[in-house]
Amino acid sequence: MMFQTFDSAGDPAVGKPRVALLRQWLAANGLDGFIVPRADEHQGEYVADRSARLKWLTGFSGSAGVAIVLGDRAIMFIDGRYTLQVRQEVDLDIFSIESLVDNPPATWIKDNLGKGVRLGFDPWLQTIGDVKALKASAEKSGATLVPLDKNPIDAIWEDQPEPPLAPVEIHPIGFAGELAKDKLARLAEAIGKDGATHAVLTDPSSIAWAFDIRGGDVPHTPLALGFAVLAADRSHLLFMDQRKFSRTVAAYLTQLAELHQPGEFEAVIAALAKGGAKIALDPVLAAEKLRMLVEDNGGTVIAAPDPARIPRATKNQAEINGARAAHRRDGAAVAKLLCWLDRQEPGKLDEIAVVTKLEECRRSTGEETQMPLRDVSFDTIAGAGPNGAIMHYRVSRATSRKLQSGELFLLDSGGQYQDGTTDITRTVPIGTPTEEMRERFTLVLKGMIGISMLRFPPGTRGSEIDAVARLALWKHGCDFAHGTGHGVGSYLAVHEGPQRIARTGTEKLLAGMIVSNEPGYYKEGSYGIRIENLILVTPAEPIEGGDIAMHGFETLTLAPIDTRLVRSDLLTRDELHWLDTYHARVLAEIGPMLDGEALAWLEKATAPLPHDQKI
Amino acid sequence: MMFQTFDSAGDPAVGKPRVALLRQWLAANGLDGFIVPRADEHQGEYVADRSARLKWLTGFSGSAGVAIVLGDRAIMFIDGRYTLQVRQEVDLDIFSIESLVDNPPATWIKDNLGKGVRLGFDPWLQTIGDVKALKASAEKSGATLVPLDKNPIDAIWEDQPEPPLAPVEIHPIGFAGELAKDKLARLAEAIGKDGATHAVLTDPSSIAWAFDIRGGDVPHTPLALGFAVLAADRSHLLFMDQRKFSRTVAAYLTQLAELHQPGEFEAVIAALAKGGAKIALDPVLAAEKLRMLVEDNGGTVIAAPDPARIPRATKNQAEINGARAAHRRDGAAVAKLLCWLDRQEPGKLDEIAVVTKLEECRRSTGEETQMPLRDVSFDTIAGAGPNGAIMHYRVSRATSRKLQSGELFLLDSGGQYQDGTTDITRTVPIGTPTEEMRERFTLVLKGMIGISMLRFPPGTRGSEIDAVARLALWKHGCDFAHGTGHGVGSYLAVHEGPQRIARTGTEKLLAGMIVSNEPGYYKEGSYGIRIENLILVTPAEPIEGGDIAMHGFETLTLAPIDTRLVRSDLLTRDELHWLDTYHARVLAEIGPMLDGEALAWLEKATAPLPHDQKI
Repeated sequence: MMFQTFDSAGDPAVGKPRVALLRQWLAANGLDGFIVPRADEHQGEYVADRSARLKWLTGFSGSAGVAIVLGDRAIMFIDGRYTLQVRQEVDLDIFSIESLVDNPPATWIKDNLGKGVRLGFDPWLQTIGDVKALKASAEKSGATLVPLDKNPIDAIWEDQPEPPLAPVEIHPIGFAGELAKDKLARLAEAIGKDGATHAVLTDPSSIAWAFDIRGGDVPHTPLALGFAVLAADRSHLLFMDQRKFSRTVAAYLTQLAELHQPGEFEAVIAALAKGGAKIALDPVLAAEKLRMLVEDNGGTVIAAPDPARIPRATKNQAEINGARAAHRRDGAAVAKLLCWLDRQEPGKLDEIAVVTKLEECRRSTGEETQMPLRDVSFDTIAGAGPNGAIMHYRVSRATSRKLQSGELFLLDSGGQYQDGTTDITRTVPIGTPTEEMRERFTLVLKGMIGISMLRFPPGTRGSEIDAVARLALWKHGCDFAHGTGHGVGSYLAVHEGPQRIARTGTEKLLAGMIVSNEPGYYKEGSYGIRIENLILVTPAEPIEGGDIAMHGFETLTLAPIDTRLVRSDLLTRDELHWLDTYHARVLAEIGPMLDGEALAWLEKATAPLPHDQKI
Repeated sequence: MMFQTFDSAGDPAVGKPRVALLRQWLAANGLDGFIVPRADEHQGEYVADRSARLKWLTGFSGSAGVAIVLGDRAIMFIDGRYTLQVRQEVDLDIFSIESLVDNPPATWIKDNLGKGVRLGFDPWLQTIGDVKALKASAEKSGATLVPLDKNPIDAIWEDQPEPPLAPVEIHPIGFAGELAKDKLARLAEAIGKDGATHAVLTDPSSIAWAFDIRGGDVPHTPLALGFAVLAADRSHLLFMDQRKFSRTVAAYLTQLAELHQPGEFEAVIAALAKGGAKIALDPVLAAEKLRMLVEDNGGTVIAAPDPARIPRATKNQAEINGARAAHRRDGAAVAKLLCWLDRQEPGKLDEIAVVTKLEECRRSTGEETQMPLRDVSFDTIAGAGPNGAIMHYRVSRATSRKLQSGELFLLDSGGQYQDGTTDITRTVPIGTPTEEMRERFTLVLKGMIGISMLRFPPGTRGSEIDAVARLALWKHGCDFAHGTGHGVGSYLAVHEGPQRIARTGTEKLLAGMIVSNEPGYYKEGSYGIRIENLILVTPAEPIEGGDIAMHGFETLTLAPIDTRLVRSDLLTRDELHWLDTYHARVLAEIGPMLDGEALAWLEKATAPLPHDQKI
């Protein structure tokens, strides 16, 4: 069985009867409407089947979205990635579509709800920050937001799956690099410094990191769903279904925290609050329900970022070494795939065939190196021709397209290994590319190299360097409509905050952070280009003759960049030197894991380019 | 008489007796302390002599700073620019020094004031935003912030000057490009859209722009101090001492607004508030006193940015044409100065001699072209050798240094002409520069050219491109501790918001905005390098073959960049092409205003460079 499936995801037929059921429930309970977010209690990118309420109600399978269902109308809010998909998955007779970015619920409510309207929401599924904005907006319209004790979807969803119970495993110290007890001691100290007695970890990534555990409750990210209450005095509590624990795991966790069943969580928070606890909650992560539980019971909420997010984001030496090893292995698998792909006749293969082969390459390389592929880190994006221009394209049997001569093929994929999470995009020509494709590819590459070669002083934020990946494209009247890079976890989420290289990247880039470096170019209806490496922020180091120690990036991803798409005359000497050096390193590091045809292919694919630059 | 003077500015001897007087007053009035900001009611860069309260009390003459005087201690808060100067101007037996950036009053208060302490402040001199932060901080420490009806400094300052009464003049339509009545109609509409009935203009730059008037109440910026209350229904009010108006000016202004004396301002705001007005105030510009007057009288404060700031910042065609003409004239004057400077023997001239000569060049060029120099736009920064490394150095008779062989000389200056405000920095070698100086100069130049050549999509913020000016320096372990560029007014303030190219530049760059482009490098105790041109954001225009219309920058400043300091082997072909093209333009545009020796010098100074680049 593969980790990735190719079913058409959403079914627009589900909306009509289910929305009707929801409306009945709302009417019976004195409500005029209800907000259905995509998120679960943990605000992660993936949710368990049980929590896929938005998909159940509307058919929409995207990773971000909100529905508002009123008595006489229903609205689906989605972002630009999903404008196409929503039309295939959602019944447009039932739902009208709004932009989650330009007219999000907090804006829409103000302009559209009448006086006296009672709009219900599930305070477990909306963050403190969400609710603050929604409430302010509702007040302006004269409407009221009503927090509900029970989620109406759960009430009407007959065969709603049970919560997941994937076994929890201990993340070995060789990969984690720091004992959970030491991490928890550090966090306890940080909580005290924030002026709090406790902090609630609501993000399962933070719990996984802090307790050195991994699970399997959601797709593609090794998370164990649960909550933790960390205490400045180190009396930590972990709320997790204990059916997920082997005896060994239970014994391990008992050393670190008092173990509780999830059902006890609310009562314990309420009791702490009654005892006068000052509880730190991250307003962008923590459920409004937690704020209510604390404040309604006389406790104090301290608004503070999740104390684990910066320690988790700044990888330690074991995690860095793991990432390097994972990327060598993953690069070898990708090279095998690219070699295989090169030998295929244009017009024969389709996208699904490539995705299937790629997963095979990752599995076999993992087995050979005794570090098996645990999962793909997300559904592979395999876009041939115009499908490549759909930024978050997920191939299904309905959409899978043949790789045709004269087209580009964009392949964005990653693996979950115990020593690290990978994410790589390569774009290759099928047959002979056009001159325009080669020019645009080279502009994207210049941006990617610009980030790779960058040195920058301590304190620099991701938002300050995002443009570096765009300068060459901008000069030619082009751009790409996504950030340059997202943070990546260590055998955790492939999209992990807070670090990122983007207009919205307000966090300082610190040594040990891993981010992606993935500029692109998308020509709608025609082709897509993206080149993505993961890069590691290196410690600030002096530069000869300079005044200030500067950070830089170490490139982790190791796979050839298709030189058939490179116009070396558009590269500066520095850029060309970077590319040649990178390719020499790729050959040296992954070559030993290949042989025969694949090695010969790699040698050719990593050969130095002619030095004929004109600029 | 010159516009610039060379007196040593601050006298540390004033602090002791005056702080003693202030403490007596505070004690007599039941207060434990008082906050003395540098700002006046209008929050501009320059204040009238009457409002130089911080300087009167402490001796400190810098353009930013705050003092807090308590019974037993006094603290002076200054930023990094003034660490040296504060030690010369302020009595350190009286004042301890704190960083305005790392430990500003709003932070300091929380950690240093005890329970029950009553700290007075003048609500006319602190903005709404200031007070919000100060109050939150005071609350945490248990102290109370007390708004005072009368400023204690005014009470104890015996010979405090009267408010300035410089005559107001009409800014001719040929320079302004839009009639005041049309501007005011636009603003009235914007105020209505903000949901307000009125907006208070507290920034004299906004009043000058909106009413097409100029004045002379503060140094170096042609402002007439006053307030305006603009109304959505167009019943505008102007509060300005009418002794500043000729009969013509009074007649002109009467067409635009009801004229009031400044003394009536408070009563009118209170009356409007009592009538239920919704008054827009800019929290970062408007005095806390205005908020109090509105809210204490039953009115509503609408927090909204000054409605004039974006219209004022986006120059119209007449202002753009004026700026181009002003920069040609100013460039010719600077070229004359640089030619003259080149003929002087090293070790003879001092900084004051150069500043004096430069003002002469600007005056004579202005007279020849019948567009006289109205003022310098700021005190010229003329830094020889180590003085060049002091970022906001102001030369005085006490500090003026000879220009010695083997040193660099940094000259940052500007003029106020009726058609535009200029600001230019050039760095020149005296004798033969070292290789390090040439390398660093070239790195700074690369940053300057990077910004000059940039194309960028609509919506780009200044913060996103600031790093472009630093990339080359960063690569060599260097940086500069100021933003890349500030906004510049049109015969208005040389430092004008909201547009800027800096980490803090959150405003979108719009066509018609003028900003400076001035990367630098400073080696403490040794030399300073800065190269500054003013640049104009051009309208977004399609690029052949591209998808998106892109903004760019038109360089306004026209004066040679010293090629003796350029290592052309470190420039890319594109950069070298930019420099040669710029120099050809400088020769073509300012050459016709020069003759004889100066023209011959300019021809040599703008000659193309050898093309020997290695990168």
